[in-house]
Amino acid sequence: MRIILDGMGGDHAPAEIVKGAAITSKLIGHEIVIVGDEEAIRRELDTVDHNSQNISIVHASEVITFDDSPVKAIRQKKDSSLVKGLMMVKEGEGDMIISAGNSGAIMTGGLLLLGRIEGIERPALGSVYPFMEKGGAGLLIDAGANSECKPHNLLHFATMGSIYMEKVLGLQSPKVGLVNMGTEPSKGGKVLKETYVLLEESRKEGINFIGNIEGRTVPTGIADVIVCDGMTGNIILKLTEGLALTIMDLLKQKFTDGAVAKIGAGLLYGKMKELKELFDYTEYGGAPILGIKHPVIKIHGSSNANAVRSGIMKAIPFVENEVIATITEAIKKVDSLEESLHGEASS
Amino acid sequence: MRIILDGMGGDHAPAEIVKGAAITSKLIGHEIVIVGDEEAIRRELDTVDHNSQNISIVHASEVITFDDSPVKAIRQKKDSSLVKGLMMVKEGEGDMIISAGNSGAIMTGGLLLLGRIEGIERPALGSVYPFMEKGGAGLLIDAGANSECKPHNLLHFATMGSIYMEKVLGLQSPKVGLVNMGTEPSKGGKVLKETYVLLEESRKEGINFIGNIEGRTVPTGIADVIVCDGMTGNIILKLTEGLALTIMDLLKQKFTDGAVAKIGAGLLYGKMKELKELFDYTEYGGAPILGIKHPVIKIHGSSNANAVRSGIMKAIPFVENEVIATITEAIKKVDSLEESLHGEASS
Repeated sequence: MRIILDGMGGDHAPAEIVKGAAITSKLIGHEIVIVGDEEAIRRELDTVDHNSQNISIVHASEVITFDDSPVKAIRQKKDSSLVKGLMMVKEGEGDMIISAGNSGAIMTGGLLLLGRIEGIERPALGSVYPFMEKGGAGLLIDAGANSECKPHNLLHFATMGSIYMEKVLGLQSPKVGLVNMGTEPSKGGKVLKETYVLLEESRKEGINFIGNIEGRTVPTGIADVIVCDGMTGNIILKLTEGLALTIMDLLKQKFTDGAVAKIGAGLLYGKMKELKELFDYTEYGGAPILGIKHPVIKIHGSSNANAVRSGIMKAIPFVENEVIATITEAIKKVDSLEESLHGEASS
Repeated sequence: MRIILDGMGGDHAPAEIVKGAAITSKLIGHEIVIVGDEEAIRRELDTVDHNSQNISIVHASEVITFDDSPVKAIRQKKDSSLVKGLMMVKEGEGDMIISAGNSGAIMTGGLLLLGRIEGIERPALGSVYPFMEKGGAGLLIDAGANSECKPHNLLHFATMGSIYMEKVLGLQSPKVGLVNMGTEPSKGGKVLKETYVLLEESRKEGINFIGNIEGRTVPTGIADVIVCDGMTGNIILKLTEGLALTIMDLLKQKFTDGAVAKIGAGLLYGKMKELKELFDYTEYGGAPILGIKHPVIKIHGSSNANAVRSGIMKAIPFVENEVIATITEAIKKVDSLEESLHGEASS
């Protein structure tokens, strides 16, 4: 397998990206191609231990930054590491691409350069959502690519998320929940009510739909695939991050307030560290863009070498277990279920 | 002032409701009328210290439960404590009503029996949202009454929420934020984009609109009035509760795991208690139903005597500071702003 890595995307590129690739090169038998400024990448690579059999560099002279407008950047920066990497995947010179760069550009680039899987109208961003108490993680889909969605789109998100959790994260028959303001099928607006009916029907194709789920139970891990529109997904993700940060800050304040508290906190140091690790998303790999014809994985913009390693390692089953082919087949099946339910597809 | 209290609504009614009224009767110079099963209420009242000058009972033979369908209950249970209490407010026998009962029934009862403020199409549920780190609290509006909203409705929520924070919680020029998936005015779907324009315009009428706010900053208290549709509001509220519970559970697990941790936790006992209190919504009073012609306050279904006391105390400025009259005037003004912006109101 050839894994294309955007060497220039992310806050700590190229140093941490290259370091992550170097570490990973010693753990896997696949080839990692780092795309970007050859001189800068080579210089970084020379400073870290790596398996040179597994790493190569492809030069790209431009960089897409976080400030670039996605569509403009993809159209104009033809020699950027991202566009060049995507084109390599398109032309069969790579099996998947991983980038820590501008999310909008990665999404747009995937869409414009690689194209959508047949039948998919709206690709989605899947984001790993860790279950702090239960352990493990689920997939929140859509995490922000499509602010408004039709029932048809949400059915596709459920299908793709379910396949991802099974094939990539190795979960048998992942539970699929639809985010709503109550658990009854009659809750929410027209879109959610219609989606509920479609998802009920999709059980015939093996989607393990468990019904509507509320905000309160999302963090408990009641569902492995958390289905919602991008607006809702964005709010769930960011509110979770914001609250976790707020609470950790508060703990820190409280636990350093006074001598007795400081001693107590000292005794709990190890436990606090364990707790902090539970908030660490990177252990579960990157965020897949699902619905695109080739595997595209977005890792966090602030990824360090360890997050890059985790992103690459966790993405390998995406290719090995033929996620794209499985999605392509499954979409045909759920679409025909939807057609027989409505006479024709609702969108 | 005569405060009508639904004696039969809530998990711990009538005992805790009556106890809360009894405590409050000694703190305020207003009259509290408890509506419900006279015998049961009298029995409870006899067991607790109270100021009998300030408390009276009005008998009602029926009870609306959490399992009742709101519309059906309001129409059929004419002699329920809630319907009777609402009718007393309508007929001028009470200045406001407070209930810990079925939220849907309180909303529906307010709407059907008391009616909407002129110009308001959709009344909203405002929910107190505590800012754990910064301290204090904001108002999340709508917290779940209207799953989908038009820009016009969201403008009204912003207006009403702003007045509530100023007149009831005593905040000067409260900051109003629109929940969105990014801070740029162009973010989100059609409804949010149009709402942004309306809220910008509403600054002319003194609404302190600070722009779009993201999930990440909601808990920090960046905005005092958190404006969103009921679906989004419900998710924010329930996810916040769910996460806070999850994290407190986790802390408990970690801090009782091993002898050293237990000693550390023992030393932090006081701090942990302080932390727990920050999650306590009841200190900030109940949730106002805004847009109804008379003051209606919903307190949490699990309210104990202390939450009842807090709910009553915090609701007094609602009447004293003439929130309803202020909202009525303000709605006329923002509606005419909207008309001059569009030629006609957009809904």
